[in-house]
Amino acid sequence: MSLLVKRIPSEQATNLREDYRAALLDDVVPWWMRHSLDEQCGGYYSLLERDGKPWATDKYMWMNSRQVWMLSHLYNVHEQNAEWLDAARLGVEFMAQHAFRDDGTMHFRLTREGESRSEVLSLYTEVFGAIAMAEYAKASGDESYWTKAMAMYDFLMPRLGRPSDSAMLGYPIDAEFHLHSHDICRITVAWVFNEIHPNQRFQNDLTLSVDSILTRHWKPDLRALLENVAPDGTALLDLPEGRMFHPGHAIESAWMLMEIAEARGNADLLQTAVEILLASLEHGWDTEYGGMRYLTNIDWTPTHPLEGNVKLWWPHSESLYALLLAWDLTGREDLGEWYWKVHDYTFKHFSDPEYGEWFGYLNRDGSPVWTAKANGWKGFFHLPRALLRALQLLSG
Amino acid sequence: MSLLVKRIPSEQATNLREDYRAALLDDVVPWWMRHSLDEQCGGYYSLLERDGKPWATDKYMWMNSRQVWMLSHLYNVHEQNAEWLDAARLGVEFMAQHAFRDDGTMHFRLTREGESRSEVLSLYTEVFGAIAMAEYAKASGDESYWTKAMAMYDFLMPRLGRPSDSAMLGYPIDAEFHLHSHDICRITVAWVFNEIHPNQRFQNDLTLSVDSILTRHWKPDLRALLENVAPDGTALLDLPEGRMFHPGHAIESAWMLMEIAEARGNADLLQTAVEILLASLEHGWDTEYGGMRYLTNIDWTPTHPLEGNVKLWWPHSESLYALLLAWDLTGREDLGEWYWKVHDYTFKHFSDPEYGEWFGYLNRDGSPVWTAKANGWKGFFHLPRALLRALQLLSG
Repeated sequence: MSLLVKRIPSEQATNLREDYRAALLDDVVPWWMRHSLDEQCGGYYSLLERDGKPWATDKYMWMNSRQVWMLSHLYNVHEQNAEWLDAARLGVEFMAQHAFRDDGTMHFRLTREGESRSEVLSLYTEVFGAIAMAEYAKASGDESYWTKAMAMYDFLMPRLGRPSDSAMLGYPIDAEFHLHSHDICRITVAWVFNEIHPNQRFQNDLTLSVDSILTRHWKPDLRALLENVAPDGTALLDLPEGRMFHPGHAIESAWMLMEIAEARGNADLLQTAVEILLASLEHGWDTEYGGMRYLTNIDWTPTHPLEGNVKLWWPHSESLYALLLAWDLTGREDLGEWYWKVHDYTFKHFSDPEYGEWFGYLNRDGSPVWTAKANGWKGFFHLPRALLRALQLLSG
Repeated sequence: MSLLVKRIPSEQATNLREDYRAALLDDVVPWWMRHSLDEQCGGYYSLLERDGKPWATDKYMWMNSRQVWMLSHLYNVHEQNAEWLDAARLGVEFMAQHAFRDDGTMHFRLTREGESRSEVLSLYTEVFGAIAMAEYAKASGDESYWTKAMAMYDFLMPRLGRPSDSAMLGYPIDAEFHLHSHDICRITVAWVFNEIHPNQRFQNDLTLSVDSILTRHWKPDLRALLENVAPDGTALLDLPEGRMFHPGHAIESAWMLMEIAEARGNADLLQTAVEILLASLEHGWDTEYGGMRYLTNIDWTPTHPLEGNVKLWWPHSESLYALLLAWDLTGREDLGEWYWKVHDYTFKHFSDPEYGEWFGYLNRDGSPVWTAKANGWKGFFHLPRALLRALQLLSG
């Protein structure tokens, strides 16, 4: 059962298809294939200058895992390009050799040669490690990686959604939160696993996250998706951390909910997802300079991080796909208008026609914070994933 | 022996004295006296809106300790105002009752009533706890606080300067650093203790930090004060963390070195401190928009925090005093020109004539990130300390 009401007007869709194809296949994928592979030590450089040269050589396992996944996914769903598979193997073998500790958790950051540099944020590292193993198993046909991926799935899932004392990237406080990021992680993993080997267990995990987002984090009366709530979903507005509204993260959730709604023919879920998308755009969009703010509190009081008004590439690329999908599934003109507003800002400010790929971080006024293309948080993931999904949508 | 060569021209000095007097005594001090005191539960509110209303009620012990110190210091060196002493007592008694753990370390953040909310960053919390106790002991004449302060001094000093795996406010990594922040902490504490009870031990600790800053962190060949170096002072430029240049922090160090140079009649130290000041201004100043950037790497590669181009009140207020002092001690016209450039930007962009006190955080373009006046990092410390020192200098 399809939820389709009215599609993106066909002339616009044709032009956009070429925009996304060119961005993905003429720019972003070749850029990373050219610059990130460490053929000598294995794995990928994580820290790349504007022109693609490494500015330091440490390797970040979130980024390494995400790149293995993305290359394998391109191979699995777009084109069986042997170079992509070889590049995925370079990363997955480096991971298998260096990234895991004896207890099954993963290192966060390694030296170029594979010595541990930091152990933090293991749960999130394992999220991306698991999808890397699963997607590479399909691409390579090597079932041992699926076995490894399923072991990671079993290890990971019971730890997601537990009360946490620590708002992601803040500092530990003596209060229990349920984190929206755990719901996104669960969907990210279960969706990938279900694409590869469809199974009711994965569907159940998707449902668990959908229910959690809708009943715990989405607050229609506040018109906000709260990042950090009590384990039972109570809003913790007395605490600064309880007021956090992360528009880009909410929008990433929104398209995941839309994909699930479409797959399940669930019109109510689609409508709620579109509401989350619009509420997040309306709250986060900078009406003076354009672009979407990174972090706010719902009442505009100070967030713990100071970079709330910095504009990051990934909330923008997530928004592009979320809006395209919402527009395509509903045909609503207001969504088309939002799409073009985000499109114009994003392609104009983030892409770098001179050296390829995208800047990651803009000052409020739209100038780059720095011109480097990759750091420990920006790799080969959000941008190519959004571009590929948009291309698939527009080619459908 | 004085290092004085030529003073700030007298007409400018007269006008500036009135500017600083008014900023300190007609604006900042009354603002905090009016808004921050929690007469009901004790201690001070740490989180204040633009108009002074609390936007949440947690109390941050860095800020509480700093305010006790600042109020007591105003009482000790400016005017024996009984209201200031009463307000200091409100904070110190709240601390004595709630802020300490059994092992002598301090809580970082408490609820309004004094329950612990977070334990992080205890070393830094104790730095400010120690100066609070010492300065309040002198203001109140209650020797039991001096005994407590000396116990904190004994507990604190051996832990400063140890190799640390953790660049301040980043995440733990498996590499040993010496942190510039530890040198600043040692000076901050030893200077206050020595003002109250002059003693060779405190002088020796000042010397220890001066030597560490000059031999470990200041790199004349790079014309940069590196925040994080190896324990032996080797620059760790292969690591992103080893490239950090924090202009405001370097400038805070610079005026501390100048005060020590003046007190000791050490012309070489004065000259080096002026070099650190100028190198930091030249590197950190935003030539396009004005104002000083918060954080950079020396090669402009990405820092771990994303807020490098945000402009914070405290590097600006530290720079005002550092430049006034340098100008006054040397009579150099280039320092006077820098002073006026920083002065014009700072008073124009940070002060809030409508509601009083200063905004804390500006986007690169100079607009406020948020309009709140106080958060867990901005309290009653950097600004009044700089204003008071400037007023004393100009009144001398």
